[in-house]
Amino acid sequence: MKASAIANANIALVKYWGKRDKKLMLPNNGSISMTVDGMSTNTTVEFDPKYDKDAVILNGKELPEGGFDEFVNHLNLIREMAGIKEKAKVATNNNFPTAAGLASSASGFAALSVAAAKAAGLDLDKKELSMLARRGSGSASRSVDGGFVEWLRGENDDGSDSYVVQIAKPDHWDFRMVTAITSTKEKKVKSRAGMAQTVATCPYYKGWLETVSEDLDKVREGIKEKDFTKVGETAELNCLKMHATMMTTKPPIIYWNPTTMRIIHSVLGWRDEGMEAYFTIDAGPQVKILCMEKDVEDIKKRLSGIEGIEKVIVCRPGGEARLVDEHLF
Amino acid sequence: MKASAIANANIALVKYWGKRDKKLMLPNNGSISMTVDGMSTNTTVEFDPKYDKDAVILNGKELPEGGFDEFVNHLNLIREMAGIKEKAKVATNNNFPTAAGLASSASGFAALSVAAAKAAGLDLDKKELSMLARRGSGSASRSVDGGFVEWLRGENDDGSDSYVVQIAKPDHWDFRMVTAITSTKEKKVKSRAGMAQTVATCPYYKGWLETVSEDLDKVREGIKEKDFTKVGETAELNCLKMHATMMTTKPPIIYWNPTTMRIIHSVLGWRDEGMEAYFTIDAGPQVKILCMEKDVEDIKKRLSGIEGIEKVIVCRPGGEARLVDEHLF
Repeated sequence: MKASAIANANIALVKYWGKRDKKLMLPNNGSISMTVDGMSTNTTVEFDPKYDKDAVILNGKELPEGGFDEFVNHLNLIREMAGIKEKAKVATNNNFPTAAGLASSASGFAALSVAAAKAAGLDLDKKELSMLARRGSGSASRSVDGGFVEWLRGENDDGSDSYVVQIAKPDHWDFRMVTAITSTKEKKVKSRAGMAQTVATCPYYKGWLETVSEDLDKVREGIKEKDFTKVGETAELNCLKMHATMMTTKPPIIYWNPTTMRIIHSVLGWRDEGMEAYFTIDAGPQVKILCMEKDVEDIKKRLSGIEGIEKVIVCRPGGEARLVDEHLF
Repeated sequence: MKASAIANANIALVKYWGKRDKKLMLPNNGSISMTVDGMSTNTTVEFDPKYDKDAVILNGKELPEGGFDEFVNHLNLIREMAGIKEKAKVATNNNFPTAAGLASSASGFAALSVAAAKAAGLDLDKKELSMLARRGSGSASRSVDGGFVEWLRGENDDGSDSYVVQIAKPDHWDFRMVTAITSTKEKKVKSRAGMAQTVATCPYYKGWLETVSEDLDKVREGIKEKDFTKVGETAELNCLKMHATMMTTKPPIIYWNPTTMRIIHSVLGWRDEGMEAYFTIDAGPQVKILCMEKDVEDIKKRLSGIEGIEKVIVCRPGGEARLVDEHLF
């Protein structure tokens, strides 16, 4: 009844922004991401009659009662699927800042799903685990698989066709993301609330939905063809399109800080100088620089000259979420 | 044959972004602005047979031959209207940074139009001067009049219904703009090239055009009703909508710098604290803070604590473009 899993975060090249079903966490559009090896969540789950209530220990600190409703909802879903009643103890550690736009909910719910399903005695395949993880956090569906993956939008109302499929394995090519952390403060507007507000009020959201299929096609093809320019150009524009919908939400959601801005202009400047790199930014102020392995050291050096960067993490394509033998308690 | 004029810059509350006719400078959408008293251009024009070519002295420095085609085109238009052939000497001074997103072309072409029309012997009324100024730079049509003005989109192919109308006189209310100059470098992408690129490539431009009429109605009504909240909220969102179209242009046009970002977050934070102020930003990195006179001193004090601001200019509603007796040469 105890199981542990590790899952990697993922960084989207074509972003997920907006749901068509809030309960089933079905997206308005498909998305493509790279599962990254540098940022992961480790989770241990134990269902046991000795527990009289669910408890969650996040990064070594027990969360206050009522402070982890999303975990409880996810555990309830798993208990229902497994036909069990036991309460659970969950310990979960992130090796990177929580809730600062670094996909901690993606790796978190992927690891929780894999560990809890096992601990509850469920035998789920990758597709099923992906759909389960999706229910906790949409982007978590992508962290179930490794390398370069697509989370299918799907068409069915029950979500049975909205899950992850792999586009390419981690070792497919030398594509890298250099993540520059510009702030480790928790963001003011969480993705879930932000995207709902965008769908409800942004005048450009229709334009987002109308053009995202083309972005998906280009990035999927670009990955398969190992065409870095195609992937980079499309991903950067897709990121700007997402942030443009955030900024034009009422009230505006602006995730960039001065350092974000500095890095954006630096990357655009590097390209003018002939260094091929692109940026992508999720719902937060961190900048992920897309590049090829040959330029990683040069980019790290360039970033060291930019004011306000707290930390740089080089991300390679990472593996799928998996069970591990070491437990956190 | 010599005349001088002074015209104020204007700052748009509902922006102009995109043309439907490049030759006649007809806009895709109407715009509303405040003519500002703090930033102006002074221009002297002399048509005389003694000149064998047009010459332009900008801020005391003679521009190199071939470096002022837009001036020559405008002088040609005026010569054609007046039926004269004489070449001109033009001296023009801005009391604020040129080409850094501070509407120098608006005040510049308004002053040039008023001075040159007079020097050429033309007798034009305000509507005609506005249409003439528009041919030099679209937003210059707004600087011909004072206070709060609307540049009508118009429907006619010949541009005969695309000119400025006044919404309210300068002394209508205590509305102010506090301009924070964050960089005096010339911008990399000029408005004219930028908007053409947006119209051609931005997936959100359709959404811009679909929603701008509503913004115009709200800001026009808000000014008339002296409803600061209505004007401020609409203007801020309209600014973000314009910048969102710039950012999602291929290749992206990003005018904000780290200090721009700092001021945006500050203004949003001030509102959370109960100080009512909004921001607007034109095609450049400067931020104009919309406020009422009672808060100007407080805002200046707050701005003094923000890193990277080079200069603060308090702008009151300014008067219309006018002939002056003092010549620059």
